[in-house]
Amino acid sequence: MSRKEAKRAKEPKGAIKERKLKVLNSLQEFGAKIYGQIASGDFPSVKMPSRSINNIFYDQKLRQYILGNKSVRRSSRNIRHIRPLTQLVWTGMFVDELTRQSKTSTLRDVFYSAQAYEMSFTDQQESDNLITDLETVIGYSREDFNVFPEERSAIFGDLTVEYTLPGYEGRRLNLTSHPDGMMIGPALTSAEFISCKADKVIAIEKGGLFTRFIEENVHKRHKALLIHTAGQAPRATRGFLRRLNQELELPVYIFTDGDPWGMHIAMVIISGSANAAHLRDLNTPDAKWFGVYATDIVEYKLPSDKLTELDIKRLYELKRDPRYEGKLWNREIETFIKIKKKAEQEAFSRYGLTYIVDEYLPTKLEMASSE
Amino acid sequence: MSRKEAKRAKEPKGAIKERKLKVLNSLQEFGAKIYGQIASGDFPSVKMPSRSINNIFYDQKLRQYILGNKSVRRSSRNIRHIRPLTQLVWTGMFVDELTRQSKTSTLRDVFYSAQAYEMSFTDQQESDNLITDLETVIGYSREDFNVFPEERSAIFGDLTVEYTLPGYEGRRLNLTSHPDGMMIGPALTSAEFISCKADKVIAIEKGGLFTRFIEENVHKRHKALLIHTAGQAPRATRGFLRRLNQELELPVYIFTDGDPWGMHIAMVIISGSANAAHLRDLNTPDAKWFGVYATDIVEYKLPSDKLTELDIKRLYELKRDPRYEGKLWNREIETFIKIKKKAEQEAFSRYGLTYIVDEYLPTKLEMASSE
Repeated sequence: MSRKEAKRAKEPKGAIKERKLKVLNSLQEFGAKIYGQIASGDFPSVKMPSRSINNIFYDQKLRQYILGNKSVRRSSRNIRHIRPLTQLVWTGMFVDELTRQSKTSTLRDVFYSAQAYEMSFTDQQESDNLITDLETVIGYSREDFNVFPEERSAIFGDLTVEYTLPGYEGRRLNLTSHPDGMMIGPALTSAEFISCKADKVIAIEKGGLFTRFIEENVHKRHKALLIHTAGQAPRATRGFLRRLNQELELPVYIFTDGDPWGMHIAMVIISGSANAAHLRDLNTPDAKWFGVYATDIVEYKLPSDKLTELDIKRLYELKRDPRYEGKLWNREIETFIKIKKKAEQEAFSRYGLTYIVDEYLPTKLEMASSE
Repeated sequence: MSRKEAKRAKEPKGAIKERKLKVLNSLQEFGAKIYGQIASGDFPSVKMPSRSINNIFYDQKLRQYILGNKSVRRSSRNIRHIRPLTQLVWTGMFVDELTRQSKTSTLRDVFYSAQAYEMSFTDQQESDNLITDLETVIGYSREDFNVFPEERSAIFGDLTVEYTLPGYEGRRLNLTSHPDGMMIGPALTSAEFISCKADKVIAIEKGGLFTRFIEENVHKRHKALLIHTAGQAPRATRGFLRRLNQELELPVYIFTDGDPWGMHIAMVIISGSANAAHLRDLNTPDAKWFGVYATDIVEYKLPSDKLTELDIKRLYELKRDPRYEGKLWNREIETFIKIKKKAEQEAFSRYGLTYIVDEYLPTKLEMASSE
């Protein structure tokens, strides 16, 4: 039995269903606490970690941002708290319904749905904040309680999944079935992994290149699951990448444009964002960025554009960012600043359309595995 | 034999392969003409319809923009024409290679690939223009010669396709296999239709609603193929909608946000764009927009936002647009201008998440079929 099979065998059956139960328990606990306070004659109140900037710290061990010890309390004893507390309790009730009925919604939907309950939000900003509060209180991300983003990314590769979505339970599909790729949405992120012939994941920023990789059989030649992040990976996709890495022990490589924004797409997959400091399980600390590096622009003589002032400002911000400690990041940030150039993934096409797959990719994979 | 089956039976087998051959023939003819001119000692030249604004007309019968009789000639006799003519010939050669090898690329790729051939383009704008020139010369759209856009939309529903993509030839898939939806890319747009249990197509602007429709079994309850346009539908998707309408005789309904931009998403599917006046087969003249109407905002008392100045300016532009003739469009444009409000598709959630599927959709479908 290979290491990977052993790992899979150890994974509890129905990990997804178990997680859903945990989320529902968490929501129930939150509700029970409120009921308990009322029953014992106390003003209902909620205590949660503060998400203010002075309570966000970078944790070197977890390799992500976390919240510190400061907390805030919302109490119905305080007249200014009654509105947000009521909204928070309603939000908990609403997403509990969603999750129990396995219905998904969006942040926008939550805002409008409130009106069905005569719960008033001034604007969507207010209801979005309440969803984040709820995440903080129950410790799960909104995708766990079925509030999904608009954006979708896609996947292609030799992974067989079994859906748990009502109406599709028990149905299995191999993710090479549709060569344009499958959308990563509620059905896939709630599916169990059945078998996987791939031994790595390659996440790709651009759609054109994702298609190129499929056409050139990268999934077969390099036994890779291919993921199209479509720019910054949506949180559901970041969580899914983590599952592929943790449950299936697949190394994750990230391939972006060669500029500070591409670099940061990789970083958010690796170390998460400060905005999600109240959450766990969304980042993949062992994922590796493998290009386009600033040093690749020099080495491969790539067609490039001049960095804009905004690009350069961004690079100096990244220099001060604790996530960007380490030799690779330092070297690349410094090189970008020195050469003042950026290059897109498609720039390799100057050596022919398949150069990127035939030459660049194998070199990078070899470098990554020999580290 | 039903009308639909009869129609399908009449369709030539391998319509997709036939189209590909026509595209290749067209490219070959273009090359042969250049060779012929050289052989007979003439300066090579190309004549094509002018795409200048004074040569674009709206055709009431085709219900799309077309080019008039003015034409332009690029001749190597004229020193200022040598560069664009050479670029045009190179572009033809390059996409001929792409199409023969069934490799896809993007506009960005074409720009970079030129450098592999020491063909110089000042910037991507220049190479994009040349691709449009080539479309005009050979009369097929760039997707036909394998230059695809970055954006992808998605599909879900009871349609079984057979891929013609190399490596996947003959493989069949039913498009209900993955409940998050399948991407619409080169593999799907080049697939043959094998069987279809749906009797209509519903194209949806927003991703969250596309997912809701799947969850609420709209594909079964209303025998519909569901398409997520992801905003303005990419050209490949517009061509695919036309195929569903023409080859399978499925009526197409379009459901967008209730504002001038949503209305125009529908219009571009129905009547195409002025930019594509040199092309055919991208629009679906019989497709119907069925909401969100301005009159729906009033009738359903939808939560709404105020129209911005930009929205209002856009409405006055649409009023002067020949595509917007007709009772429905007039009424809705006037109502928008009168009520000065817009509403998103999600606004129906104020009556509960499933109201849109349980109440609004059946009403609209009934209205559409009784017209």
